Amino acid sequence: MAECTVGDYLLQRLREIGVRHVFGVPGDYQLEFLDQIEATDGIEWVGNCNELNAAYAADGYARLNGIGALVTTFSVGELSALNGIGGAYAESVPLVSIVGTPATFVVRDRQTVHHSTGDGDFSHAAKCASEYTVAQALLSRDNAAPEIDRALSLCWLLKRPVYIMLPADVAGQPIDAPAQPLELPEPTSDPVKLAKFVHQARDLLGASGSVAVLVGHEVDRYRLSSPVIGLAEALGAPVACLSSAKGVFPESHELFVGGYAGALSDPYARTAIEDAECLITVGCEFTDSTTGGFTQHIDPQRVIELHPAAATVAGTCHSHVAMRDALEALAGAIRPTAAVTQSLMGHDSGYGVRADPAERLVQERFWPLLGTFLEPGDVVIAEQGTSYFGGAAIPLPRDCSFIGQPLWGSIGYTLPALLGSMLAAPDRRHVLLIGDGSFQLTAQELATVLRLGLNPVIVLINNDGYTVERCILGPEAAYNGIAPWRYDKLVEAFDPADRAISVKVRTEGELAAALDAAAANRDRLVFVEAVMDRLDAPESVVRIGKAFAAADYHHAPV
Amino acid sequence: MAECTVGDYLLQRLREIGVRHVFGVPGDYQLEFLDQIEATDGIEWVGNCNELNAAYAADGYARLNGIGALVTTFSVGELSALNGIGGAYAESVPLVSIVGTPATFVVRDRQTVHHSTGDGDFSHAAKCASEYTVAQALLSRDNAAPEIDRALSLCWLLKRPVYIMLPADVAGQPIDAPAQPLELPEPTSDPVKLAKFVHQARDLLGASGSVAVLVGHEVDRYRLSSPVIGLAEALGAPVACLSSAKGVFPESHELFVGGYAGALSDPYARTAIEDAECLITVGCEFTDSTTGGFTQHIDPQRVIELHPAAATVAGTCHSHVAMRDALEALAGAIRPTAAVTQSLMGHDSGYGVRADPAERLVQERFWPLLGTFLEPGDVVIAEQGTSYFGGAAIPLPRDCSFIGQPLWGSIGYTLPALLGSMLAAPDRRHVLLIGDGSFQLTAQELATVLRLGLNPVIVLINNDGYTVERCILGPEAAYNGIAPWRYDKLVEAFDPADRAISVKVRTEGELAAALDAAAANRDRLVFVEAVMDRLDAPESVVRIGKAFAAADYHHAPV
Repeated sequence: MAECTVGDYLLQRLREIGVRHVFGVPGDYQLEFLDQIEATDGIEWVGNCNELNAAYAADGYARLNGIGALVTTFSVGELSALNGIGGAYAESVPLVSIVGTPATFVVRDRQTVHHSTGDGDFSHAAKCASEYTVAQALLSRDNAAPEIDRALSLCWLLKRPVYIMLPADVAGQPIDAPAQPLELPEPTSDPVKLAKFVHQARDLLGASGSVAVLVGHEVDRYRLSSPVIGLAEALGAPVACLSSAKGVFPESHELFVGGYAGALSDPYARTAIEDAECLITVGCEFTDSTTGGFTQHIDPQRVIELHPAAATVAGTCHSHVAMRDALEALAGAIRPTAAVTQSLMGHDSGYGVRADPAERLVQERFWPLLGTFLEPGDVVIAEQGTSYFGGAAIPLPRDCSFIGQPLWGSIGYTLPALLGSMLAAPDRRHVLLIGDGSFQLTAQELATVLRLGLNPVIVLINNDGYTVERCILGPEAAYNGIAPWRYDKLVEAFDPADRAISVKVRTEGELAAALDAAAANRDRLVFVEAVMDRLDAPESVVRIGKAFAAADYHHAPV
Repeated sequence: MAECTVGDYLLQRLREIGVRHVFGVPGDYQLEFLDQIEATDGIEWVGNCNELNAAYAADGYARLNGIGALVTTFSVGELSALNGIGGAYAESVPLVSIVGTPATFVVRDRQTVHHSTGDGDFSHAAKCASEYTVAQALLSRDNAAPEIDRALSLCWLLKRPVYIMLPADVAGQPIDAPAQPLELPEPTSDPVKLAKFVHQARDLLGASGSVAVLVGHEVDRYRLSSPVIGLAEALGAPVACLSSAKGVFPESHELFVGGYAGALSDPYARTAIEDAECLITVGCEFTDSTTGGFTQHIDPQRVIELHPAAATVAGTCHSHVAMRDALEALAGAIRPTAAVTQSLMGHDSGYGVRADPAERLVQERFWPLLGTFLEPGDVVIAEQGTSYFGGAAIPLPRDCSFIGQPLWGSIGYTLPALLGSMLAAPDRRHVLLIGDGSFQLTAQELATVLRLGLNPVIVLINNDGYTVERCILGPEAAYNGIAPWRYDKLVEAFDPADRAISVKVRTEGELAAALDAAAANRDRLVFVEAVMDRLDAPESVVRIGKAFAAADYHHAPV
């Protein structure tokens, strides 16, 4: 045991599990903890413009870093961040949400202090947090060490947010803290149950003339790409990814057949997945937004379904079977069937499109043109809307990452998430794809990106509003419009050091020139405003818009 | 009964109770309702840049209009707005929060649709809303009319937010709706209990050699300024206001002695309130932020305390005594004691300060200088921080309103609240006082103000960060700093029609010229960026900072 303060212990544990940046907005209930952060080597405070942006940034950070953290103040701050916490919960992103609360005696005496509701009940916001977190802790001098360890362990194990309340008067209190590092838990298997699973799975595989693998986002969150590749190679099976796991299986791999999105899939990928006699789904969740509105056709009787801590074979669930163990056990248990890989050769990568300089930008050609810009190792962050669906169709070079939020789908997420992803992986190039409607929600965080000297490429689709909504209802409705902004002036406003390059493009030639400039100026932020028609959208967005309208309003589906 | 749709019925009721603008952000679960709004005469859709801003705008609107409404989408939208709903709950502002949710069958079947958490539980966000609303309704074809009426009635009666879930497939369904208008409930009194209260109160008044009146925010929310003035005049009693009720009793009235804030009060007002042998508090709530950190010295045994639906005399509570009835009954029951008014004459209004052109701006003189700019009828919106405390000290000409959020204290509130207040009272001049730290949280809503052609005067204090936090802890800490912005460029970015005038001032002469320009250009938005030192703050902020630090961290109080 070693003596330290509660706040320092929390910071020490965060650093141990890989947190190097903490996002947030200062508030008087956590200023002493902020002092502790500033005094901590290896952890940097990142002040955001507001708390929602801080939560999004922490989410983007966690996507690449493995875990993220944010600090907000009681009630007002944490509620502003709640949508971001909810997104991390829905999309399985491990976040540590630390909230500075009023001092213990203030709460005990139910004082009518600022940021409270004045009714003497200090639990309102904590109850809200409990809806979107897998552990909640209220720290005191007595419980701090075990409660911090419990919360961080669950965050790591379950890959979902946890909530830690740190009262103002507790951060500085001394405790005897365990000296040994925190042992991070991983999902484990019961050997007997694992063996039963492998037995049943091998039977199904053995009886199947073809097998395919479908990859979902849990593979990313549990960092299991390698064993998935191992299994696919052992099987010689074609692999597709849900868009929520785009890039998790390398798109440059010879077994990769494309994105799978039900009826919106490339026909080649759709056939590979839906016609396989046995389909192994790894960490998949079928949501309306990743399946073209639940248009997947997959017979559960021919599916081996792997999740972090359980697996299902032809409808029979095997609990206590960890995904990693299942992947490795399956790879070891089967013999490769090389035949399948032959059929992959005709797969069209989508590369090869060339800019026609005088042509006005249209979405059908815009995304393939952007594809020619991407390089190995890039991080692509794609905002829900045309950017996500357009971006999902771009073939990714090797070692690229793709970040989106298809289930939660909170517009405005990606700009702050870009801030986080850049801090998590500062040596990679980060490319943000975002529409104007979404950009306006969280636009000010561009100032933080610039303040920290980060150099992403930001591609803003200026198409006069919420085009994805226009594809659902109200194509010409005023409510789907937004204020016209001068985006170039906005960049100037946030960039007093004039570090950024800002370009507005309307033609393919202008786009190509802008992308060339971006490639030649890796040491500057490049902001490309691409003007397109407000009813122009990728075919996938048009079709998903109709599917959503059908579900929402009983309009006839496609 | 008349046939109409659920959405149209809700809109008809909103219009009846005075809602003429509905704030929000479109989302696919409420697009059909937005179509209904666009088709409704007398109700206008105001699209905001994000949902938190929409909630703040609806709050600012309700402060002047009496009630406000916003529409957001399921989960992502409503959670982003939640801090704004919480603020309305804490500060007693009646808001109708309408949330477009997935269609009934989607929820019934627990589909993994966008904006859900993917766990099949669609109640997470509704549980959060229930923490900050006084009624919740889930509309269906069968319950829509009575549930809408119940929710709106409670919103009106209790002056707090209510929550209405409108599933996507329900908005357009036909119902038989009551034809008679909604009868809005008001707090009422039990005549026997009212008489007992008056009897006891008259006894206390009769035994007291002096009486004073202290006004709180509930007087504003229940629109009871007139009976308060009537009572004060009947008593001839000096009147002070908590800052949360600034302007609710006219500051130009001869009985007004100043703002009361415990030890931070002007000594004259403090003496009038604390030394009165009987004090009538009307709709008051003593919070840390309005009392200099609970420094009020008020003996409950000499207090008559009035609240919307109950009254207390010397510690004895009388339920079922409505504030309006209590005010009128007391005014009728006592004889005026004209003597008191004589002592008010020496009250220093604070007017008369003149700009010294070459002097650099300092907060001590800045607020009095701004005071000379105000005119009768102005609406002053003051952001929590130096702006609120500085603004609270400015004497208000007649018929002015003052909007702040001292209890909830969510920074960033006022810029969107300005949008709302301007739409509620378009014929008045609106003056926003805001610091740079706060401004950055919600800055984009300036674009909506400009898009709608509104012409406020915005005074931005550029003092390099969170000065109010610097007064609590970390005066030079990096975490209390923010990104430097070029605010003039920001105005240009949001103002493609070049309607705004933007001026940066550093001296009293420049400030005076800017305010002259504002006075001469009532038909344009005028944005004044006032540069001041980052540790310069009104004395009240310095002192409250020390009080907060003492409460938060056990530092020695002043």
